[in-house]
Amino acid sequence: MTLTETSRAAPLSLHEDRLLPGEPRARDIARELYSSVRDHPIISPHGHVDPNMLLADEAFADPTSLLVQPDHYVTRMLHANGIPLAELGVGQGPLPEAGARSAWRMLCAHWHVFRGTPMRYWFDSELGGIFGITERPSEDNADRLYDQIAGKLSEPAFRPRALLTRFGIEVLATTDDPSDSLSAHHAIAADPTFPTRVIPTFRPDRYLEPGAVGWNAEIDRLGRAAGLQLDNFAAYIAALEDRRRFFIANGAVSADHSHFDLGTTHLDGAEAERIYRAARAGEATEAECTVFRRHMLLEMARMSCDDGLVMTVHPGVHRNHHPATYAAFGGDTGHDIPVATEYTNALQPLLERYGTHPNLHLVLFTVDATAFNREIAPLAGFYPSVYIGAPWWFLDNPTEIRNFQRSVSEIAGLSRLSGFVDDTRAFCSIPARHDMSRRLDAGFLAELVAEHRMDLDEAADSLSQLVAAQPRRVFKL
Amino acid sequence: MTLTETSRAAPLSLHEDRLLPGEPRARDIARELYSSVRDHPIISPHGHVDPNMLLADEAFADPTSLLVQPDHYVTRMLHANGIPLAELGVGQGPLPEAGARSAWRMLCAHWHVFRGTPMRYWFDSELGGIFGITERPSEDNADRLYDQIAGKLSEPAFRPRALLTRFGIEVLATTDDPSDSLSAHHAIAADPTFPTRVIPTFRPDRYLEPGAVGWNAEIDRLGRAAGLQLDNFAAYIAALEDRRRFFIANGAVSADHSHFDLGTTHLDGAEAERIYRAARAGEATEAECTVFRRHMLLEMARMSCDDGLVMTVHPGVHRNHHPATYAAFGGDTGHDIPVATEYTNALQPLLERYGTHPNLHLVLFTVDATAFNREIAPLAGFYPSVYIGAPWWFLDNPTEIRNFQRSVSEIAGLSRLSGFVDDTRAFCSIPARHDMSRRLDAGFLAELVAEHRMDLDEAADSLSQLVAAQPRRVFKL
Amino acid sequence: MTLTETSRAAPLSLHEDRLLPGEPRARDIARELYSSVRDHPIISPHGHVDPNMLLADEAFADPTSLLVQPDHYVTRMLHANGIPLAELGVGQGPLPEAGARSAWRMLCAHWHVFRGTPMRYWFDSELGGIFGITERPSEDNADRLYDQIAGKLSEPAFRPRALLTRFGIEVLATTDDPSDSLSAHHAIAADPTFPTRVIPTFRPDRYLEPGAVGWNAEIDRLGRAAGLQLDNFAAYIAALEDRRRFFIANGAVSADHSHFDLGTTHLDGAEAERIYRAARAGEATEAECTVFRRHMLLEMARMSCDDGLVMTVHPGVHRNHHPATYAAFGGDTGHDIPVATEYTNALQPLLERYGTHPNLHLVLFTVDATAFNREIAPLAGFYPSVYIGAPWWFLDNPTEIRNFQRSVSEIAGLSRLSGFVDDTRAFCSIPARHDMSRRLDAGFLAELVAEHRMDLDEAADSLSQLVAAQPRRVFKL
Repeated sequence: MTLTETSRAAPLSLHEDRLLPGEPRARDIARELYSSVRDHPIISPHGHVDPNMLLADEAFADPTSLLVQPDHYVTRMLHANGIPLAELGVGQGPLPEAGARSAWRMLCAHWHVFRGTPMRYWFDSELGGIFGITERPSEDNADRLYDQIAGKLSEPAFRPRALLTRFGIEVLATTDDPSDSLSAHHAIAADPTFPTRVIPTFRPDRYLEPGAVGWNAEIDRLGRAAGLQLDNFAAYIAALEDRRRFFIANGAVSADHSHFDLGTTHLDGAEAERIYRAARAGEATEAECTVFRRHMLLEMARMSCDDGLVMTVHPGVHRNHHPATYAAFGGDTGHDIPVATEYTNALQPLLERYGTHPNLHLVLFTVDATAFNREIAPLAGFYPSVYIGAPWWFLDNPTEIRNFQRSVSEIAGLSRLSGFVDDTRAFCSIPARHDMSRRLDAGFLAELVAEHRMDLDEAADSLSQLVAAQPRRVFKL
Repeated sequence: MTLTETSRAAPLSLHEDRLLPGEPRARDIARELYSSVRDHPIISPHGHVDPNMLLADEAFADPTSLLVQPDHYVTRMLHANGIPLAELGVGQGPLPEAGARSAWRMLCAHWHVFRGTPMRYWFDSELGGIFGITERPSEDNADRLYDQIAGKLSEPAFRPRALLTRFGIEVLATTDDPSDSLSAHHAIAADPTFPTRVIPTFRPDRYLEPGAVGWNAEIDRLGRAAGLQLDNFAAYIAALEDRRRFFIANGAVSADHSHFDLGTTHLDGAEAERIYRAARAGEATEAECTVFRRHMLLEMARMSCDDGLVMTVHPGVHRNHHPATYAAFGGDTGHDIPVATEYTNALQPLLERYGTHPNLHLVLFTVDATAFNREIAPLAGFYPSVYIGAPWWFLDNPTEIRNFQRSVSEIAGLSRLSGFVDDTRAFCSIPARHDMSRRLDAGFLAELVAEHRMDLDEAADSLSQLVAAQPRRVFKL
Repeated sequence: MTLTETSRAAPLSLHEDRLLPGEPRARDIARELYSSVRDHPIISPHGHVDPNMLLADEAFADPTSLLVQPDHYVTRMLHANGIPLAELGVGQGPLPEAGARSAWRMLCAHWHVFRGTPMRYWFDSELGGIFGITERPSEDNADRLYDQIAGKLSEPAFRPRALLTRFGIEVLATTDDPSDSLSAHHAIAADPTFPTRVIPTFRPDRYLEPGAVGWNAEIDRLGRAAGLQLDNFAAYIAALEDRRRFFIANGAVSADHSHFDLGTTHLDGAEAERIYRAARAGEATEAECTVFRRHMLLEMARMSCDDGLVMTVHPGVHRNHHPATYAAFGGDTGHDIPVATEYTNALQPLLERYGTHPNLHLVLFTVDATAFNREIAPLAGFYPSVYIGAPWWFLDNPTEIRNFQRSVSEIAGLSRLSGFVDDTRAFCSIPARHDMSRRLDAGFLAELVAEHRMDLDEAADSLSQLVAAQPRRVFKL
């Protein structure tokens, strides 16, 4: 096949060996391993799907609101290539048809900018695997593809619940505000026909940062949810504990934390009380707010030891780097940029106290890949509470995942990995993301077998652990 | 072939598949891709060749002054292996023949210390590809090779202009002082027979660092070049703007910046004026000098938005790490040592203001490879102004280039890369460096094709973009 | 072979091609290269074997005290997987048989947690290569394997000296306290029949950190060893110099240094005296203790220039991260966790003074892999005194070693590497560790040959240098 010949046609094909190793012997082993887990149900213990969407089970409005607008992986790439976010409908609900088509056309016309990225890989899987598209998107076929997908979306088989079944999602965790009523979760749990176990996740960041704008109002809201007057530190702690119990009663298994850094500090009771009151009075200094937040992360670990919620942390992101974009479109719009992040010293006060507590499962994520072999794997290679979170945000691509697999597993062993976490806002990308992970895990293990560093039966067992057993064990599912 | 047999002869051979992937299928694809760009003209948008040398077009004096003395990649390696820089003629003009031969002999006798390095790769390409050498250099054949190269250098075909033509260099940017008259560039541009577009680059570092020794005298020199009295901040700004216009009128397309860190800060006019005057009076504190420099980097971005000069930055180097060597031989003598460098926070004030300005092209280079996937690619994956500069200084070797290709392209896509930048002081290494880059790009893309992550026609188009279209687009050529 | 078939049996096999490249052509080259160094005597210039054990030459007590208890690589992994260190006999001498068997059973029952790690690789090599074990350990066969190994240990061929001969260890450096009498070393050196050159290493950390608990008592001990009253700075320096001479007279070739950071600073004599006296009086501030320690690291370099001891440094570890474990079991029990470490600025004062001194050999180790290409290789690529230490502690696994090989050699050349350093406390793992290194070196070089970046004869010579010549040259053996 020559370059000229291939240029004539532009099929979208999903090769059965995609992402497996190129070297034939390793690829053969990888293919065998992959086939043993390909159809395993999906366990998604951390993500950002809206439970109300699942409950309502209405047809998706159009291809753009389903596949483009909510996916900041996709919109940031188009923005980087010169397309204003407003033209993509970012931060808006479903667009009028002309706008939705226009945004879709821009996606298709810029298909080349995704070459070699995971976004392209997921998109190919979604278009080909879910919607039966067989052509590579382009400016020319954009409208035809739009119509083809829109047609599918009007069919019952493409509604959320039907897709949950088709995707084989066994467990799906959402991310929720501690003051939330969890009514959608309650309704889903009460429906015996619902195909997936949908569980909430306790995400208390906003209540733990007295330095953030609007903290006092958030605390009032938390007090109302807990039925408590939060005028002292003990009441504040009681409210958080109460809401954690409420989340647990509604199925939650984990609490998720995302602060700029991972610092933990212990304050004695009087000092915590003093700073809490100062913050409620709007009089806490920036340094006091920081030390209070760090004390509260320690408190969250203490509560996890008490109530068993798995603790996941996602630190080290400069959120909303471009203020004008934040003002116009809100958060999670593609400009949360990583910074260097420290784990060893930051977590020492927490691990000194709780690192060997049998109830604590602390899953460490990072967007600073240098922490994997320097800090996270060494911590997880000693502390029984520490697990290594899967590569996240900018790092959830094949290259970084491969580096991660080799690097952390040779330091801490495969048993210390969390298993794959998709962390996505793009519902239809869930199966593609898990499939990518399974292929990469199979390829990684196959190469160890090919190098005579692991036996084939062990590789098969390890793959099964990573895909099925470990997420259940680490997230207490 | 056994070890004993190979030891008998030591040919210098340039294998047609060198640097392509070892795995046969990927190598076949890479070979096809590479052949499609192998002979493309060279675009060199940033480097350190002397335009006066090109203009004068005199025969090179000898092999040592051409291939050893000016190349700090080579001399630092010999120094590390025990050869004093003085014996290599560092910091001197052409040596008397005995000295030139002696330095050449030391190079050949230490040929083994370059094994596996890019310096060896470039040298092999230069010796074999330009001078027709067919033996591996050694202590034994050093003089014979010297004579062979010296003989070639006396031929007209080996003068600078003839080599520009032979190398296929379409565009060559030099690096120039803002006070420079650009007379060589003017003369070259005025010669319709000159084979290459040679353009200057505006490099204003020394005028932006009031804390540096001799800053006041530099400012006076800048004032004379601009025909202005630089006794206030507005005049200083006007002089810089004037010289940028002059450079643009003489063909410049970019301004290059290299400070210890990338910090940017905004000062209001009165504060900038105050510090400027204090600095001119020799009374600015170190902190004031730093904040002023950071404000000026912001100003440079503002000017780039106004006048369109592409902005390239090369931060994060502890320059002249060994003072005794600097005192004896000057700068750029091999002991500029990288330090950890921060981009996300440092550039936020700049990107907040100008990050979406259509005129700004900001190309970020680094010698801290951890910044590629943590900061630079994420920034380039959102801001339309930010481009990812090719691996630089210690990082321009096959391993780092391969890590870079995979890592940044999966985060930001291939469209956000600057294309290859040779940044060299070694004239004859230009084609070897670009050829190395083309081979590595072809191999990288071939592996994506072999893993069914990219179609062959897309890989071919991407390679053409990287080699030809992107440098032109990013550097506005 | 299918998964089901392999699951039936669980042999422990040592494949002849293990760890060599998977790609057939590179593997063939690697096999040829490896065979040329496989049987070369082992040079171990830095490690932690007890010389008294070698001198006494008694039979090892049991498999657990030989293979589990002293190896914090192994015990930390079991601890991370939920086994208390007390149950593994950490920090204790040989256990009663019931305890030793119980710990051994836990190891075997958790064999899967080591999959893919270097610990597994070393263990397989030890069990198969030294003790003739042919089954993969498991809960079921734990007692049988225990008996098999215990039986071997009672044979004369498995006593320390016999194993030194069998392992082919030519030189073995221990790590010793400067106040040590070195009586074991003296006795070994006096025995003409002793099969290995066993040499001490000067490890003065505890005497250089006035901020550490017990420093004053240590200094008194040092004074007694040197026969000096250490009531002033000059006497303190004289005592250190005296003990270095004593170590050199007993065969030492190097001094090893491990502080939290690598900072070096120069104090004038009066200031050093003042801080020394304050520290002896228990009145030095934390800042004074830090600056004194940094001055002393500079002094150690000065002494190395004078007396020729090779200087090795192992910085950047947060030692004893979990205080409760330290209190119960002591140091070196698996919770020394890396932190980001800076070399460029920290070492500048030292290298400015001594970086080109012909007597100085400064071998830089790191547990922060980002320093390899950013700081350590660039420093070693200029300063003739600086050598790149082999990957250490968490980094001594195949993935990190491969990254290291490529990364540093393309910047600084192969001649700047220290050669392999096992740094182990696990006596029986020494040959496995060196064999792993030789296989990885052979594979790395074979891939360069397969990519036509190095000729085969050069690869063979480079491998021989790395295995044999360079450790001798760098460590002055």
